[in-house]
Amino acid sequence: MRALVLDGGVEVRDVPMPVRAPGEALIRVLTAGICNTDIELKRGYMNYTGILGHEFVGIVEACENQVLRGKRVVGEINCVCHQCAYCRLEIPRHCLSRTVLGIQGRSGAFAEYLTLPEENLHLAPNSIRDDVVVFAEPTAAAFRITEQIPITQNERVIVLGDGKLGQLIAQVLWNYTKNLICIGRHLWKLELLSRLGIPTALEADPVERGADIVVESTGSHSGFSRALELVRPEGVVILKTTVAHPTAIELSNPVVNEIRIIGSRCGPFRPALEALSLGTVEVRPMITEIYPLSDAVQALVRAEDPGVMKVLLHM
Amino acid sequence: MRALVLDGGVEVRDVPMPVRAPGEALIRVLTAGICNTDIELKRGYMNYTGILGHEFVGIVEACENQVLRGKRVVGEINCVCHQCAYCRLEIPRHCLSRTVLGIQGRSGAFAEYLTLPEENLHLAPNSIRDDVVVFAEPTAAAFRITEQIPITQNERVIVLGDGKLGQLIAQVLWNYTKNLICIGRHLWKLELLSRLGIPTALEADPVERGADIVVESTGSHSGFSRALELVRPEGVVILKTTVAHPTAIELSNPVVNEIRIIGSRCGPFRPALEALSLGTVEVRPMITEIYPLSDAVQALVRAEDPGVMKVLLHM
Repeated sequence: MRALVLDGGVEVRDVPMPVRAPGEALIRVLTAGICNTDIELKRGYMNYTGILGHEFVGIVEACENQVLRGKRVVGEINCVCHQCAYCRLEIPRHCLSRTVLGIQGRSGAFAEYLTLPEENLHLAPNSIRDDVVVFAEPTAAAFRITEQIPITQNERVIVLGDGKLGQLIAQVLWNYTKNLICIGRHLWKLELLSRLGIPTALEADPVERGADIVVESTGSHSGFSRALELVRPEGVVILKTTVAHPTAIELSNPVVNEIRIIGSRCGPFRPALEALSLGTVEVRPMITEIYPLSDAVQALVRAEDPGVMKVLLHM
Repeated sequence: MRALVLDGGVEVRDVPMPVRAPGEALIRVLTAGICNTDIELKRGYMNYTGILGHEFVGIVEACENQVLRGKRVVGEINCVCHQCAYCRLEIPRHCLSRTVLGIQGRSGAFAEYLTLPEENLHLAPNSIRDDVVVFAEPTAAAFRITEQIPITQNERVIVLGDGKLGQLIAQVLWNYTKNLICIGRHLWKLELLSRLGIPTALEADPVERGADIVVESTGSHSGFSRALELVRPEGVVILKTTVAHPTAIELSNPVVNEIRIIGSRCGPFRPALEALSLGTVEVRPMITEIYPLSDAVQALVRAEDPGVMKVLLHM
């Protein structure tokens, strides 16, 4: 089969068909999404080599569970052992011997086929098109925040970053509080949120400090310091950005102001699928371009351009 | 009166007697303690100039409340306005227009007299000697952690740092969980904890990772990265260290492992006084030296020496 392989550089090449292990399903990929993490991986983050990609929708071609066979599915990306200390502590996404689709020890979704444990799969509701349901994974990552801290309608929230993840987070949290603003660098990206009624500001605009919650999803080193400036004492900073190199931070600020900083990664698929199905999260305006798998190298370069939002691959 | 003044350098000099504002008490200082924060202030932290010192016990010489007059007291260091957004949010220690004894906009305790709002004062129980009750403020800072996160007897806790604050934290949390270890650089300091039955290790010793809670109280830049190595996914790192310059941090670690990092500063005096009174926190072995106020400059230099623990001033 054809796949986009990271191995020093990236190229589309012929690779062997994946072989499913016991309990796994073989999935024919229909559509996949390019995430900033793919770009960071290309830059050396995690030292990953292999097939990239972890956002996908596909058809189950082979598996043990008859209910899944032939069905359209999306999939959780952490494949876990159920036996280590963290699996037993019921935090399996942090399994000590996990593999992660297209990120760590497991071939990814920028390919004609992939394998994943059956337990990782969720049926894609018929009402949601491929190019929408492919957002299930990053939308779940946005919902992760609501598992980590209670967000009530009285909470004042600032989302830093108008990129793909920032937009999903702003939309998700907008359903919890209307006292929210998204701050970004690109007027046209913020415009997508404005059209949904969500308040926005450019980085240079004056913004009231003292927010209860600041979500850092800028993808840049400067975002964290900015978040510490904007949050109130005893407030919460949610960290979503993963960058490959160290960031210099004035740590006395969070100590003196007793800030709570919470790292946040993968999230629950169920509320994500529900939001995509109901349209309480609206993703189609975020799709900038769609490429065939054969042009995946070009698609990945394109996805790095600040002038684009989501780039999808059709297999 | 005589006082230790920070103004570029430090010196003991004659300064005017403090004048108490309405609602304030005039206190004759008996004993004061030197804290690492005093050393950081001397190095430029907070750009503070004025009389140093925020740990003290003294006698109320003048005040409006007759009950307090002539009594021996300790005092909370944050003086607040009761009117700003954070006072109204019931987080007055973060008052926007606060002054902080010997740290920010208010003359400190390394002096013959100081003033503090009456509401900041706590009677020092007769059963506790001056050189013990002077530890009320840092002991309260240790108890702050127990207000911020629940610590049960099942929690595995690592305290990083065998200095004054690290030792108080280890002793306080030892009352909550026996699954605790304090890691430090100095065998003789760790020995003080060992004598109380508290497990210890040197930095170079192998230590099991994956702690539920790691308290960073090393006072050094390297402590935070070490804390991130030792804490389990979704675990908590309590930050106590305030240092004046930025620290370089690999932020992808707390994101991927979804660590909760909580800044922690001042704490509740009541449980601190109770612990000092009952002896569940034992501070006298930590006192290395006692100087008269006239030798305060020398005392401050001495306190920087890694070979000492607590240095006290007698007025």
